Amino acid sequence: MVKKNRKFTKLMKKSGVKEHFHQPGTIPGTIIVDENSKPPSIFLIDYNQTDLIHKQISYPEECINYLDTNSVSWVDVQGLGNQDILQRLGQSFDLHPLILEDIVNMVERPKIEDYEDQLVIIAHMVVPNNNNGSFYGEQVSLVLGKYYVLTVQEEPEHDCFDGVRNRIDKSKGIIRCQGSDYLAYALLDAIIDGFFPVLELYGERIDDLEEEVIINPSQKTLQKIYQIRRELLQLRRGIWPQRDAINSLIRDGSELISPDVRIYLRDCYDHTVQLIDILETYRELVAGLMDVYLSAVSNKMNEIMKLLTVVSSIFIPLTFIAGVYGMNFNTEKSPHNMPELNWYWGYPLCLALMLLVATILLYSFWRRGWLSNSANLPREFHR
Amino acid sequence: MVKKNRKFTKLMKKSGVKEHFHQPGTIPGTIIVDENSKPPSIFLIDYNQTDLIHKQISYPEECINYLDTNSVSWVDVQGLGNQDILQRLGQSFDLHPLILEDIVNMVERPKIEDYEDQLVIIAHMVVPNNNNGSFYGEQVSLVLGKYYVLTVQEEPEHDCFDGVRNRIDKSKGIIRCQGSDYLAYALLDAIIDGFFPVLELYGERIDDLEEEVIINPSQKTLQKIYQIRRELLQLRRGIWPQRDAINSLIRDGSELISPDVRIYLRDCYDHTVQLIDILETYRELVAGLMDVYLSAVSNKMNEIMKLLTVVSSIFIPLTFIAGVYGMNFNTEKSPHNMPELNWYWGYPLCLALMLLVATILLYSFWRRGWLSNSANLPREFHR
Amino acid sequence: MVKKNRKFTKLMKKSGVKEHFHQPGTIPGTIIVDENSKPPSIFLIDYNQTDLIHKQISYPEECINYLDTNSVSWVDVQGLGNQDILQRLGQSFDLHPLILEDIVNMVERPKIEDYEDQLVIIAHMVVPNNNNGSFYGEQVSLVLGKYYVLTVQEEPEHDCFDGVRNRIDKSKGIIRCQGSDYLAYALLDAIIDGFFPVLELYGERIDDLEEEVIINPSQKTLQKIYQIRRELLQLRRGIWPQRDAINSLIRDGSELISPDVRIYLRDCYDHTVQLIDILETYRELVAGLMDVYLSAVSNKMNEIMKLLTVVSSIFIPLTFIAGVYGMNFNTEKSPHNMPELNWYWGYPLCLALMLLVATILLYSFWRRGWLSNSANLPREFHR
Amino acid sequence: MVKKNRKFTKLMKKSGVKEHFHQPGTIPGTIIVDENSKPPSIFLIDYNQTDLIHKQISYPEECINYLDTNSVSWVDVQGLGNQDILQRLGQSFDLHPLILEDIVNMVERPKIEDYEDQLVIIAHMVVPNNNNGSFYGEQVSLVLGKYYVLTVQEEPEHDCFDGVRNRIDKSKGIIRCQGSDYLAYALLDAIIDGFFPVLELYGERIDDLEEEVIINPSQKTLQKIYQIRRELLQLRRGIWPQRDAINSLIRDGSELISPDVRIYLRDCYDHTVQLIDILETYRELVAGLMDVYLSAVSNKMNEIMKLLTVVSSIFIPLTFIAGVYGMNFNTEKSPHNMPELNWYWGYPLCLALMLLVATILLYSFWRRGWLSNSANLPREFHR
Amino acid sequence: MVKKNRKFTKLMKKSGVKEHFHQPGTIPGTIIVDENSKPPSIFLIDYNQTDLIHKQISYPEECINYLDTNSVSWVDVQGLGNQDILQRLGQSFDLHPLILEDIVNMVERPKIEDYEDQLVIIAHMVVPNNNNGSFYGEQVSLVLGKYYVLTVQEEPEHDCFDGVRNRIDKSKGIIRCQGSDYLAYALLDAIIDGFFPVLELYGERIDDLEEEVIINPSQKTLQKIYQIRRELLQLRRGIWPQRDAINSLIRDGSELISPDVRIYLRDCYDHTVQLIDILETYRELVAGLMDVYLSAVSNKMNEIMKLLTVVSSIFIPLTFIAGVYGMNFNTEKSPHNMPELNWYWGYPLCLALMLLVATILLYSFWRRGWLSNSANLPREFHR
Repeated sequence: MVKKNRKFTKLMKKSGVKEHFHQPGTIPGTIIVDENSKPPSIFLIDYNQTDLIHKQISYPEECINYLDTNSVSWVDVQGLGNQDILQRLGQSFDLHPLILEDIVNMVERPKIEDYEDQLVIIAHMVVPNNNNGSFYGEQVSLVLGKYYVLTVQEEPEHDCFDGVRNRIDKSKGIIRCQGSDYLAYALLDAIIDGFFPVLELYGERIDDLEEEVIINPSQKTLQKIYQIRRELLQLRRGIWPQRDAINSLIRDGSELISPDVRIYLRDCYDHTVQLIDILETYRELVAGLMDVYLSAVSNKMNEIMKLLTVVSSIFIPLTFIAGVYGMNFNTEKSPHNMPELNWYWGYPLCLALMLLVATILLYSFWRRGWLSNSANLPREFHR
Repeated sequence: MVKKNRKFTKLMKKSGVKEHFHQPGTIPGTIIVDENSKPPSIFLIDYNQTDLIHKQISYPEECINYLDTNSVSWVDVQGLGNQDILQRLGQSFDLHPLILEDIVNMVERPKIEDYEDQLVIIAHMVVPNNNNGSFYGEQVSLVLGKYYVLTVQEEPEHDCFDGVRNRIDKSKGIIRCQGSDYLAYALLDAIIDGFFPVLELYGERIDDLEEEVIINPSQKTLQKIYQIRRELLQLRRGIWPQRDAINSLIRDGSELISPDVRIYLRDCYDHTVQLIDILETYRELVAGLMDVYLSAVSNKMNEIMKLLTVVSSIFIPLTFIAGVYGMNFNTEKSPHNMPELNWYWGYPLCLALMLLVATILLYSFWRRGWLSNSANLPREFHR
Repeated sequence: MVKKNRKFTKLMKKSGVKEHFHQPGTIPGTIIVDENSKPPSIFLIDYNQTDLIHKQISYPEECINYLDTNSVSWVDVQGLGNQDILQRLGQSFDLHPLILEDIVNMVERPKIEDYEDQLVIIAHMVVPNNNNGSFYGEQVSLVLGKYYVLTVQEEPEHDCFDGVRNRIDKSKGIIRCQGSDYLAYALLDAIIDGFFPVLELYGERIDDLEEEVIINPSQKTLQKIYQIRRELLQLRRGIWPQRDAINSLIRDGSELISPDVRIYLRDCYDHTVQLIDILETYRELVAGLMDVYLSAVSNKMNEIMKLLTVVSSIFIPLTFIAGVYGMNFNTEKSPHNMPELNWYWGYPLCLALMLLVATILLYSFWRRGWLSNSANLPREFHR
Repeated sequence: MVKKNRKFTKLMKKSGVKEHFHQPGTIPGTIIVDENSKPPSIFLIDYNQTDLIHKQISYPEECINYLDTNSVSWVDVQGLGNQDILQRLGQSFDLHPLILEDIVNMVERPKIEDYEDQLVIIAHMVVPNNNNGSFYGEQVSLVLGKYYVLTVQEEPEHDCFDGVRNRIDKSKGIIRCQGSDYLAYALLDAIIDGFFPVLELYGERIDDLEEEVIINPSQKTLQKIYQIRRELLQLRRGIWPQRDAINSLIRDGSELISPDVRIYLRDCYDHTVQLIDILETYRELVAGLMDVYLSAVSNKMNEIMKLLTVVSSIFIPLTFIAGVYGMNFNTEKSPHNMPELNWYWGYPLCLALMLLVATILLYSFWRRGWLSNSANLPREFHR
Repeated sequence: MVKKNRKFTKLMKKSGVKEHFHQPGTIPGTIIVDENSKPPSIFLIDYNQTDLIHKQISYPEECINYLDTNSVSWVDVQGLGNQDILQRLGQSFDLHPLILEDIVNMVERPKIEDYEDQLVIIAHMVVPNNNNGSFYGEQVSLVLGKYYVLTVQEEPEHDCFDGVRNRIDKSKGIIRCQGSDYLAYALLDAIIDGFFPVLELYGERIDDLEEEVIINPSQKTLQKIYQIRRELLQLRRGIWPQRDAINSLIRDGSELISPDVRIYLRDCYDHTVQLIDILETYRELVAGLMDVYLSAVSNKMNEIMKLLTVVSSIFIPLTFIAGVYGMNFNTEKSPHNMPELNWYWGYPLCLALMLLVATILLYSFWRRGWLSNSANLPREFHR
């Protein structure tokens, strides 16, 4: 009867367990290629202070020539849909089988692995999805060597590296004068900074929800709150380990990273901490929103019940009075049998009695403040 | 009156306190055999790079010949239903009485014990139960010696070691070239990886519940949420200490584990951390679901109350009007006594008045939005 | 109007603050004897590998002869109702005044105190109370000397030491071959293991509550949940510090404890950690039960409201119709005044109209599913 | 319209922020005298093993003679209402301006400051207020010198030091044979022990609330729960830092404190930990009470709704039947128009029908158990 | 339909993410000038023990002369609206590009950065907003050099430094005799102390809410609670890292800070801890308020339902009785047909019956206590 909520499922696939995990007992280092993934395209940017080469490469082995030269080589692999090419890529860069597994099987938490002459950084990259206020997330792996940086991403459609490409192309800032460690920093910084616009979207969604939840709480609102809560949990799982990874990058003192770049990494670390601060604040706000929602629903119920009570309490006694004078006691058998029916002013007096009762009841409700704000609260709210 | 909920009870037995604990004051090292447990079957796999022996063994003492040879021996004991055999097993492998107690009495939390020439790993193994989305759990004990690995499991019906057996048989990967420490790692890795499909089942159950809770929350939903919460707690008690155990395995530097295997264990540790990440996320999601459930039930109540209020508020005043003209004031005694009854258009005017009142009330309810979504929300929900 | 809930009060006295605390500013080391406490009985068990003496002692000073002999002496004091005897006991064992205060004033948290030639362990002992699923709790103090163990307990009626006494009497296990440190371990282990049957009782109570809360939640259920929560809090206050105490016992390396016994203590520590695991799981389950209770009560309210709404919504419109035709408009004055009253088929048509309205309403309620499960849910629940 | 709740405000003033804080940017070390504070009275007790001097002092400078003598001098200042005297006190005792500020401006959290020849302890002292089950709280500052202890308290009316004064006067215990460090310990111990009777009061209030919340939850109950929660928060802010302060007193090893006294301080530390245990237990209990309250209110609503539903469901159908036979269809126009009205047994049959309907409905309600416990639950509750 | 809630949005801008964050991939050290910011005004105060210069400076380069002289120079920059001036300021003070970015881009969390000859402190400054009980927040950056302090703030309208300016002008306290480190401390202390009046405002708002929530909970109350919760979250994000920053300032031992000033910083640190204590207490109180609100709303619903139930339960049976005697059974056809109608005392007896029923019902409601406190609770509440 009920269609699957696609967005939920999609998210879980992106960030986690489904499909990518390998069967228990498979050989460690096994590469599993996702059938839906695009075939890898390999882009090379090789630069030093004066020269710059831009090139798309067909075979992974082409890279080898560039790796040991003095210039900085950035090899960017986009798409993971071909097992053979990935294997050869691993050989070209001389990667440990476990690293290659981590890079290809996109289920890893962010982490840092230090293999003497290579530093592997597994990170999460997010790009805001302005259509629904959510985000696209994917794993990015950075391998830092002495003269090269290898980046591997699954989705060729969007990344956060355009700013860095631009700086290299236009020779802006100091990037062209620095080594591969600075490039790795610049890419990592771009990844971290990429979380800010995503969080900004969530900030706006929470702002909108805050009003909706107080003014017009509905089933949909509830769903939205839960949805945000869930997505923030996803983000959190991406950011927290990133912080630890960067921190150990700063402290562990790999020789591949120069002290100058280490200062920049500290700045990068500060940004991650700030991200976490904002994220946790948002999580607390959303948790608070759920409480507010529950209260607002109860409030609404109060308004409904008030209305029911006011209407019932006024008309039920009146109906009773009408019922009394609708009785058929025989007035002719006895002077005590409903003499009011034969009074000259009987009916007007009866109506007057009803009016009196209604007035008294209305007045008592008014004193309790049940009449004033029962209906038009939402409109009064706009301050 | 009410039958016991078997599943709950079963789970608790599996993972914990009941039955297996010994009476206070019994001698430490006492082995208590569960009467329902199957008698132990002992399987031996002895291999090196070239040779491979598969064998079922009848008497524990038969193992002794294989333990000190240069080849790797994997002794797999399935079933715990015979105290005598277990005692002799302990003697054959020269196990400390406390270790034997830990292995047999299946109530231990995962842990690692380092006895100079033996490393004992107590772990929890889970196998997904596709019938109800839950899992079968049992304790597995690994004893790692210089040339052998002893594994003891209670339930012979299912384990996660088929992949490993397969790799040994078909000589896939590097397992045949490595020592007993690599075998122990491979088994431990299979145990850890065995949690992923179980968690995946829970991910699906949570997905299903998310829809159920918003669209059609019922008593059963509540029960399911609580059930998942409870089972995740069980899983958690299995995974968390496993992480600590593997961590201390990596750091404490027993001589039985070579540096190469230590790198693989780090990968295994990463998987455990990832499991915990997912598990904790699920736990938060389920906690959130409970809030959503409560809100959804309140919402439903609001809908019910709205309907009651709309119906009552419209018909109670109308009934009052009808009641008034059902009064029996004597129109002949006075011209003031209900002259309306004798009007030419009396009845049509009265009906018109009722219609007017009903229209005004309906309009005011419509303006408040009480009429639109009161009934068909569940059907509108399918996006 | 309301009688005091005795059980609550009793519990608090047992585990805590009331009565036993001394007035601010009293001299440290002051002994306060609880008037209701029984007078102390002193039991001596003196044993070595070959000999065994069982004896009840009248004067504390009698112990002194046994303390320095080579055999292990276990002096067990039961009851705290005589200040003079306690003072003399302190002198006989040469206890620091602060220790004696700790032992007698039963308000201490579990802890370990290391006085060069004596090791004082303050622990909590619990015994399951099968009448109400709760437990009796009391403080036990162990003083470990080179050749003796002194235990002091308040309540002579029950303790967990029978197993240990049995092992000494029957010379089971290795206890008769070991020193006083092993005896202290055996007693401590019996105390720790004594928590398992208590927790088992709570496991059963929680199982029962789980069904009650979903099938038939009532005021009493609420009270039971709160009661369990409270008692688990009590248990927790007893267990947590016990863990720390045992841990520091293992690590701090007093000379009174031999390395062999230290291994056994590690086992004891593992049991404590396991206890805490189970306890915290139970606490989470009970916290979850409270949420479930709240939801179940809301659900029940929904059922009640549904019934009210169905009944009201069907009969109020019908009563309105009846009311209309109960009006007294004069049909003779005008052909427009209630001509239906004079129709040949007037009454049957009116009844048919009522039937139609009722059918339509019932059908619409049926479509919403309000009729099916409103009443008999509890009976359907038994799976 | 609503008067300020004085108690709340009073509490906040006592324990915290209001009034005492100085303007941002004022000179550090500034003394602000609270106008409502009483003028300081200075009491001196000077004692050694044999002699004892009790004296009220007019000018702070009089103390100086006693400070350097071999006997222990306890200078107790009560009241803070005179800036000049306080300044001179500071000079007499040679206090650092920041210490004097801490002592006078009663807003500090408990802490310990070590100035080579002086040890400053800022503590919170509470005295139970038996009128309302709350407490009076104030700051006490202890300055420990080689031969003297200076204590400063705001409120002369009550403190917890009477026991200590008594022990000095009557030469009870070992206090007269010990130095100033023991005196400081004795005072600190009295302060800590002073929390127990306060917590005991809260234990009783929680006991009372437990019954009230289940048997008769009202608006007032809610207020009381919140009030206790708030006051426990206050207490907590006083106790927690006290623990840290005492701990650092034990560990940091100031030369002013002898090893013997350090053992006593360990006892004092244990008491603080125990206080925190009890306090946190109470906080959990109160948090649980809030949940229970919410559930109990929902339960009560259920009872109310049940009554409404029973009454409505029984009488609305009956009224409908009465309404039908109150219709005025003309029986003379047609034999089908309400022939029942002219039946010989019409009225009795109609009443019998009503009785039948009512009985069926009552029976169905009885089967659901709605009739039994709806009203008299509170009275049944007394077990 | 609904206007944006400005205050929320404003707050978020002030304290966080929006607008100021730079695009992912921009060059580190980029300065982004907020268009709405005011152009910078630069104020110089140069002083030593004897001399004092007050001066407004037009060009940043003018400062340079003062920086290396022996006197202390305080350069206070207010407003950030001119990129060129800020760049030149950075050059004049020889600031690292990353520092300048931190100072100008007002999104940083409080932190401390130690560059050998400069110490950079990023702090949050708040000023109470007495109009709405909230606060103005902005970032303040302090750069401490050997002979100078540079402060940069965005908003020229208000800061907390007037007290410090005053002390310098009037030569109050020891500030004129101390170096630049004391000035930095004094400014930091003023910033920290500036949080107290803000928290005091929140204390008052919480006091007010406590009454509102119990006496008259409405939709607005809910909004206020959420608003306070949100603002306290903001404050928290400002204070917590400030504590860490000051702590590392004390411990890390930069040479720019003398031991004397370090003692003062410890005082400053104590104040921060105290702020956090108060803040966390407030956060707990507000969380408690939300629970109280939910309970109070439920309570109110109970009152409403009670009224409805009382009115309905009394009048529905009465109306039924009236309905019975309004039936038209033909009394002439049979003596059994409603003989009551023809009784002599029929009508009075009927009224008496009604009165009896009403009395019984009222009495039973009164016994349940439903009549007493249903309406006038709010007025009774004023104690």
